Amino acid sequence: MLPFVAVSRSRDPANEGRVDPLLEVREKRRGKRPGDAYVRIVRPYEDTLRKGGDEGELIATERTILERRGWKAGVRNLRTWLIGRPIHSEREEHERLTKVKGLAIFSSDNISSSAYGPEEIMRVLALAGSGVLFLTLPLAGLIVVMLAIVTLSYRQTIKAYPKGASSYIVASDNLGSRFGVLAAAALLIGYVVTVAVSVSAGVAAMTSLLPAIYDDKVWISVVLVLLIMLGNLRGIRESGTIFMVPTYAYIVVMLGIIAYGVARVTLGEVPAFVPPPDWEPVEQTTQVLGLFLILRAFSQGAVALTGVEAISDGVPAFRPPEWKNARTTLTWAAIVFAVLFVGIAFLVTRLGIQPDGSERNTLLSLMVRTLAGDGLVLAVAQVATALILVLAANTSFADFPRLSSFLARDGFLPRQFAFRGERLAFTTGIVALSAVAIALLIGFRASVSGLIPLYTLGVFIAFTLSQGGMLARWWRRREDGWRAGLAINGLGTATTAVVAVVVGTSNFFQGAWLVIVLVPILMIILMGINRHYRDMDQALALDHMDPGEEVAPRPIVIVPIARLDRPARQAIAFANSISTEAVAVHVTNDPAAADEMRERWPEWAGSTELVVVESPYRALIGPLLAYMDALQRQAPDRPVLVVLSEFVPKHWWENLLHNQTALRLKLRLFARRNTIVADVPFHPYRD
Amino acid sequence: MLPFVAVSRSRDPANEGRVDPLLEVREKRRGKRPGDAYVRIVRPYEDTLRKGGDEGELIATERTILERRGWKAGVRNLRTWLIGRPIHSEREEHERLTKVKGLAIFSSDNISSSAYGPEEIMRVLALAGSGVLFLTLPLAGLIVVMLAIVTLSYRQTIKAYPKGASSYIVASDNLGSRFGVLAAAALLIGYVVTVAVSVSAGVAAMTSLLPAIYDDKVWISVVLVLLIMLGNLRGIRESGTIFMVPTYAYIVVMLGIIAYGVARVTLGEVPAFVPPPDWEPVEQTTQVLGLFLILRAFSQGAVALTGVEAISDGVPAFRPPEWKNARTTLTWAAIVFAVLFVGIAFLVTRLGIQPDGSERNTLLSLMVRTLAGDGLVLAVAQVATALILVLAANTSFADFPRLSSFLARDGFLPRQFAFRGERLAFTTGIVALSAVAIALLIGFRASVSGLIPLYTLGVFIAFTLSQGGMLARWWRRREDGWRAGLAINGLGTATTAVVAVVVGTSNFFQGAWLVIVLVPILMIILMGINRHYRDMDQALALDHMDPGEEVAPRPIVIVPIARLDRPARQAIAFANSISTEAVAVHVTNDPAAADEMRERWPEWAGSTELVVVESPYRALIGPLLAYMDALQRQAPDRPVLVVLSEFVPKHWWENLLHNQTALRLKLRLFARRNTIVADVPFHPYRD
Repeated sequence: MLPFVAVSRSRDPANEGRVDPLLEVREKRRGKRPGDAYVRIVRPYEDTLRKGGDEGELIATERTILERRGWKAGVRNLRTWLIGRPIHSEREEHERLTKVKGLAIFSSDNISSSAYGPEEIMRVLALAGSGVLFLTLPLAGLIVVMLAIVTLSYRQTIKAYPKGASSYIVASDNLGSRFGVLAAAALLIGYVVTVAVSVSAGVAAMTSLLPAIYDDKVWISVVLVLLIMLGNLRGIRESGTIFMVPTYAYIVVMLGIIAYGVARVTLGEVPAFVPPPDWEPVEQTTQVLGLFLILRAFSQGAVALTGVEAISDGVPAFRPPEWKNARTTLTWAAIVFAVLFVGIAFLVTRLGIQPDGSERNTLLSLMVRTLAGDGLVLAVAQVATALILVLAANTSFADFPRLSSFLARDGFLPRQFAFRGERLAFTTGIVALSAVAIALLIGFRASVSGLIPLYTLGVFIAFTLSQGGMLARWWRRREDGWRAGLAINGLGTATTAVVAVVVGTSNFFQGAWLVIVLVPILMIILMGINRHYRDMDQALALDHMDPGEEVAPRPIVIVPIARLDRPARQAIAFANSISTEAVAVHVTNDPAAADEMRERWPEWAGSTELVVVESPYRALIGPLLAYMDALQRQAPDRPVLVVLSEFVPKHWWENLLHNQTALRLKLRLFARRNTIVADVPFHPYRD
Repeated sequence: MLPFVAVSRSRDPANEGRVDPLLEVREKRRGKRPGDAYVRIVRPYEDTLRKGGDEGELIATERTILERRGWKAGVRNLRTWLIGRPIHSEREEHERLTKVKGLAIFSSDNISSSAYGPEEIMRVLALAGSGVLFLTLPLAGLIVVMLAIVTLSYRQTIKAYPKGASSYIVASDNLGSRFGVLAAAALLIGYVVTVAVSVSAGVAAMTSLLPAIYDDKVWISVVLVLLIMLGNLRGIRESGTIFMVPTYAYIVVMLGIIAYGVARVTLGEVPAFVPPPDWEPVEQTTQVLGLFLILRAFSQGAVALTGVEAISDGVPAFRPPEWKNARTTLTWAAIVFAVLFVGIAFLVTRLGIQPDGSERNTLLSLMVRTLAGDGLVLAVAQVATALILVLAANTSFADFPRLSSFLARDGFLPRQFAFRGERLAFTTGIVALSAVAIALLIGFRASVSGLIPLYTLGVFIAFTLSQGGMLARWWRRREDGWRAGLAINGLGTATTAVVAVVVGTSNFFQGAWLVIVLVPILMIILMGINRHYRDMDQALALDHMDPGEEVAPRPIVIVPIARLDRPARQAIAFANSISTEAVAVHVTNDPAAADEMRERWPEWAGSTELVVVESPYRALIGPLLAYMDALQRQAPDRPVLVVLSEFVPKHWWENLLHNQTALRLKLRLFARRNTIVADVPFHPYRD
């Protein structure tokens, strides 16, 4: 019944089995002949722990984390069903991404932007009248040129930083950690917004197909985020497998439609744009086509470039040779995007398609309808588009946790973010991203689509810092081909800086101000965490003090007891097992009850000394602390060990009826110098 | 710098000062002649602890609870300013109530009902046309008769239960604990509702004087509750002093007005009722005057009787002889109420005053206006009424905590409710009542006036059970005068039972259903708590096991360390001070870092053994538990003492960046058999 039972009054070690910390129990036995002895080695629990190669080393097996009993086993089974069995650290390389999966994971974000990029450009241009819509194609071309510049320069960056070419790393390394943190803060916010925006955009695309689910869009969004989270918790390789299908489906469907459209146009057979019945022309405004409007239209398409940063951040996720595979994937992602984006822009301008003023039809659906009619092709294209819009979130799920792990490694985020979970995924980052994105979705009732231009800003700030960092690097190092590198990254810096300014100013009141407010706040938090970790290292690290073993004096052991019961008796027994002069202390406001306790004391507690501290003001903690002070005044060097008996109830809610005073006492003692607290739990309901 | 420093490698007790638990340090000194020795006794900290009368007894002084340094001293000063200095337990009797203060505290609730009781009766009667308003006076008379019956029978109850005549106690004692808990649940809910209702009614009276504050009424209500709470936290005697003034002000003002009015009416000079311009007649309905309507009108006035229970509950708060003083106060409270209630009912019917259909003018204000005009007297009467309406809440503040303390004493509520705070008040009950009432006020936006009839139900359920209990008592005991007692309590039982049924049915849809739903829920909670305490006593009490000192085997001591730093070194030093075979355990997923640690180990940690448990699935807790299992398999009887080093950071928020794993580990270890956890805090920022 008692968790530990009396075995013997004596404390002679000979009476108690000696414990071997390496779990080898050597049994000495006499042989048959006199003087003959042999040693047998027993290793308990060989199924959970194995002996390692070095002296004093044990290796835990998978069984140590698998619960085998009770409700916890059920939780473990559910967990295995949801995210799979734990993966051994040695399998890390095996869990990396192939180029095909890498393209799907890291490019779903920018490939999805081909679905709405041309439309966003057209809508801005339409403000100056439908006469200027012909500019869509040149602007799309300009974006592809910019993408080419950025891709080229990031190919260099990936080569230079083969262990992860995140803007954070490049900027930290070349421009100083402040710029690195600025890039990181901008990217973190960008990734969170990306999740919320793309999921809500995807759900909006779904609700336009199935208007009946419109009222539940918040919960559908939340469930989608949770599903993507689960997929990512299964590890990057499996999430690549899961999310590859919709990405390639979109690519194949769209390439097919574009090829078909271009072929028909080339053959001179241009189908007429017949607007569907619910189509409305875009409202005309008095805006004239100026530089600002062109720049705004251009910045609408610039979201396409975000995938470049995504791949650079994720270099370590690729199979070796990591940087080569990442570079190849980057190039392919740029080509796929360019073909889709220019193809769509070409077809819509050539077919004379105009955006729907009522926003009931997307430009893409109008294009598909014009080319292939109102049938199966349109439905397939719509579903593929909705899926890839949702999956754009997955890029953030691949990058946010990895960037967080870089930040945690350098002490800018809590260490948990650098810890790989059972499936080698950065669990904390994945869960944190989901939580913030879900909060955003619920807060904005899943209509955050207006924030689309907003997240471009963060990425372009990071781009500019990364390119600027590379510029500084070329200039300092003057390695082979530094002039060409300087030219490419210089062009990249200039381009991305201009886009960042355009995006920031043209969307300032539409949401960019929020990024401009949040980025510095997040920077302050990141740098505060970093200062804390540095202070802590300064305070704790052994390097700042003399080597040598530390020796502590024997503690003064006291056992505060509220009443004479079995947990108290057990705590006293424990105290006596580690000290020859332990004292029980009873703080009370009821002298009569204390007298009774003193009377029964010898019968129940033997020779252990009892001190009664009467508290006429009914406080418990103050008098106990005063008593501890008085004890320590007698022996200032000795710490006080406070042995607390705690009752472990049957149900968790019963804790509300207990241990409140113990909890307050522990908080006070935690802050007290030279004080150690030992908890002796009492489990009456366990056999 | 270190909380405890090395003093000596040796653990010879001779090297360390022995500590005397009774704080008497006997210094042995040699006298002048050889063999001459004397003992000097030193008592450290005589200002915080004094020696008590018995052996082994210390008495804490007030200084043990007064903080003298830092921000905590500021908190203490603020606390002293708000609620006063701590009061010694011996002053308890001095802190009791005189009859004058007792009347003010326990009767403000029912005296305040004279302000709205007649109006509520009239409004119900008016449903059957203004022709039946003359019934107001007979109904008021009937209520006073009922009050007389209940008062008479409670005078007997108080005599029979001189230590507290709460319905809970009377019903438990005579009808069994289930009925006691039923009475208690009904009363607890009634008290909470009373606070919310009376404060919101008082604030409504204020806003009718000052419409500008209407928008802030929720916050005004909350502040008023907090003020009443503070007053009560100062102790019952001081709260009596504070809240006596408004109660007696209302009594004096109203008695004056009634005397003046009755005098004028007696002199044949009846002023005409001239309705003010914003007065509107009450809307006529087609209801006919039936028994149900009369009963409903009657039940509206029945709220007047709640003060009777209040005084009975609070008997122990009176100065000795408690029961005599309580009885006298009860009688006086009934008389004061009867005079006010009947006086007002008489005047309003005699002056022909009719309630205001627009609810902009109270009946009382119409009466005062008719008698004394629109001037100072009206203003004074209005202010006094608003104050007493708010102060009706104070009765609950006197009774709820006391009833809770009875319940806690018997194990139906957590023990904290029975604990007297620094001012001898039942702090937990006072704070709990305020919290629930504030939640109610905020939830209902301070317009809970509609619940007024609701709280009468709880009180009448309790009344009926108390009277029924007395009935059973007389019948069983057959003491002197049992026939008279039986008659009085029988009449009381019948009357209060009828009122309970009338209130419950006539207001069922107006809110009484809520009471009927909540009372059983609260009963289940109270009885669940009781069952828990009984189970616990069964499991813990020493009576259920053999006497004798318990002896525990030496613990197996392990020190889990995350890295080789100063907190870890300190934890190892502590472990070595209480065990000769302590082992440091390092669970890691990074074999390279572990190798480095093993290399540096002898330099920093001396001869303490280090065990490295490699965790290829990156879990920390599972492998550690498996290792502990393996150790205990070697010595099944010995408990494991887990020594954890914890870093105490400079700011509280920094805890979020630390100790997360330690916290999870502690939760797991808390539930583990045969396991003790010792926390060794490390304070790098304290000198």
